[in-house]
Amino acid sequence: MKKISIIGGTGSIGTQTLDVIAANPELFELTSFAFGRNTTVAVPWLNRLQPMLVGVQDETTRQELEQQLTYQPTIVIGEEGLLDIVTHPEVDTVITAVVGAVGLRPTLAAIEAGKTIGLANKETLVTAGHLVMKIAREKNVTILPVDSEHAAIFQCLNGERREDVRQIILTASGGSFRDQSREDLADVTVEQALAHPNWSMGAKITIDSATMMNKGFEVIEAHWLFDVDYADIDVVIHRESIIHSMVEFNDGAVMAQLGMPDMREPIQYALTYPSRLEIQGGERLNLKEIGRLHFADASFDRYPLLRLAFEAGQAGGSMPSVLNAANEQAVDRFLKGDIRFLEIEASVEAALQAHTLIDEPSLDQILEADRWAREFVSSLTFAN
Amino acid sequence: MKKISIIGGTGSIGTQTLDVIAANPELFELTSFAFGRNTTVAVPWLNRLQPMLVGVQDETTRQELEQQLTYQPTIVIGEEGLLDIVTHPEVDTVITAVVGAVGLRPTLAAIEAGKTIGLANKETLVTAGHLVMKIAREKNVTILPVDSEHAAIFQCLNGERREDVRQIILTASGGSFRDQSREDLADVTVEQALAHPNWSMGAKITIDSATMMNKGFEVIEAHWLFDVDYADIDVVIHRESIIHSMVEFNDGAVMAQLGMPDMREPIQYALTYPSRLEIQGGERLNLKEIGRLHFADASFDRYPLLRLAFEAGQAGGSMPSVLNAANEQAVDRFLKGDIRFLEIEASVEAALQAHTLIDEPSLDQILEADRWAREFVSSLTFAN
Repeated sequence: MKKISIIGGTGSIGTQTLDVIAANPELFELTSFAFGRNTTVAVPWLNRLQPMLVGVQDETTRQELEQQLTYQPTIVIGEEGLLDIVTHPEVDTVITAVVGAVGLRPTLAAIEAGKTIGLANKETLVTAGHLVMKIAREKNVTILPVDSEHAAIFQCLNGERREDVRQIILTASGGSFRDQSREDLADVTVEQALAHPNWSMGAKITIDSATMMNKGFEVIEAHWLFDVDYADIDVVIHRESIIHSMVEFNDGAVMAQLGMPDMREPIQYALTYPSRLEIQGGERLNLKEIGRLHFADASFDRYPLLRLAFEAGQAGGSMPSVLNAANEQAVDRFLKGDIRFLEIEASVEAALQAHTLIDEPSLDQILEADRWAREFVSSLTFAN
Repeated sequence: MKKISIIGGTGSIGTQTLDVIAANPELFELTSFAFGRNTTVAVPWLNRLQPMLVGVQDETTRQELEQQLTYQPTIVIGEEGLLDIVTHPEVDTVITAVVGAVGLRPTLAAIEAGKTIGLANKETLVTAGHLVMKIAREKNVTILPVDSEHAAIFQCLNGERREDVRQIILTASGGSFRDQSREDLADVTVEQALAHPNWSMGAKITIDSATMMNKGFEVIEAHWLFDVDYADIDVVIHRESIIHSMVEFNDGAVMAQLGMPDMREPIQYALTYPSRLEIQGGERLNLKEIGRLHFADASFDRYPLLRLAFEAGQAGGSMPSVLNAANEQAVDRFLKGDIRFLEIEASVEAALQAHTLIDEPSLDQILEADRWAREFVSSLTFAN
């Protein structure tokens, strides 16, 4: 019986993790569970799976929860509570599904406590890869990526030697505007940007997919997860999103992982690794029906945020934190109708240029760089 | 230092194995080497790599060899000699690159002697899979397939559990006539049949590629190598031959191995496994340049020899031996202008129908079924 902890439990990754646990009660037990304020989603799951330790964002939510639960778990509160959730002594695997910088401290604490990590929080590796991987190596902790690209790469590396890897090839759908030129993008609307062809996701990540910022973050994550130089990471546009990513080895062999778009696969794999398990109602890949797979160059001219991600990654230190925070603030402004689509890129580039690099930043310095970048981007004005 | 034995050393696989050994003298040593009569190819290699034990087909070739060699190996002769070659006590890995039924006995002897096998002889598994795999399990011998499809599957299974495999998916180029309908095939010439789009191979295997008989043999080999039911083996036409084959797992993930067509990859992998090694002058896969990969159904109506392979495999016993021998004889007749292209299929089907199945045949019964099928096909006449 594997004992699971989830933080960020009411989001898309969190609830799909709950689905997997509930479908396999003989294999998995939900031991601890944290969410923010969404009791509507949380309560039925809690009453069903009855984790003994539950974390919520604030006192109001705790009271609400106590009234609605049919059992009596220990309830903890806030960011400090998250640390209790992930370090609970009985927990084997922690799924870090919280969004944003709030994931950093609990992820580091879970690694410190020797837990296996199912990592779905992008910010952790993008902003603090140097800290996370150092502790993970020291504690001999396995980090299992919970997203389709890195889970694919992880699977391609199964049974292989690190020194035989020549290149990591991330595939990218190209996002909502993959068939438009840069010139077409000046006046696109929020609605157009939110129409992703392959995946149904939240607003922020759909925009990040259209700008390729998301792929840029994945490049930085791949660098840390698989200890690969930026020069040995390539991005290929693959519109069908069937090949989830690839690894090229030094003998010329390329291993790829393919499948229908289904986030339950990487989620479940993080829970079952090194085994696999049937997914109830999972759709099987049928290449004969699909007929064709397409591949194209992911040009830095067409996708400047991808270039900026490589540059910020190579610069290292606090740069990726600025990249992440500046982008988040800029996307927020775009979604509010405050700036135009191409001004997302301009905002991020301006922030990176204005930032003074801190090498090997501490967690506090990371959070400070994050705060600075948000303020910087908020204060930017664009001529119309 | 890995000590290598090659039988069938002057053919395409044999000489490419010699290339790999010669390119990596710090890793590999050629310990024993057998060929037929082609001293023109053999002598320069022998003088260069100086294996201590050499096998030839007959006394004439032995005398020729003794005059031309600059060193003095032990020379053995004929089929008995092959057994000495593969069971030499110092040998670690045997590459079985001989063509035809002559490969059977030495392969079994090498497995019996506990050698790792790099298997390039198709007949071994097609006709005697039940014998070979039984002894291989008993002796705990690893069989590394030396052809692009099975080497791909082997690599897809790296680090995975056998019980998680749902399906093996063999890719097929479709051969010389993949864009023709069955009606177009009645009057094709030998020359047209020998023009394979992707791979440059011998005449027999190029014809087998056009009829899909070759893929049928690979289905039977995959059944034995990977212990998979015939119902769980699928064939997909993939004209670019970039994806060399795939494995679908029970969670819906499909692992694929890709690369440029280069037989040195599976050959070298059989020598270096579980490591990999750079291939000098190897061409790198560039999917951005290739742009598109195509997939289509491999219809049993269009390719009746593929259907017959599944049927013969499922029937088991001596049936696959009849399939193999009947096809070989029929292809020989086609190449001599004796029968027409579609009469290859008709010959094989007639032989399978006329044959009385022997369950669990011994090696002698396999060779007898082989002999019978050849005679049967030789005696067939077709109305014109």
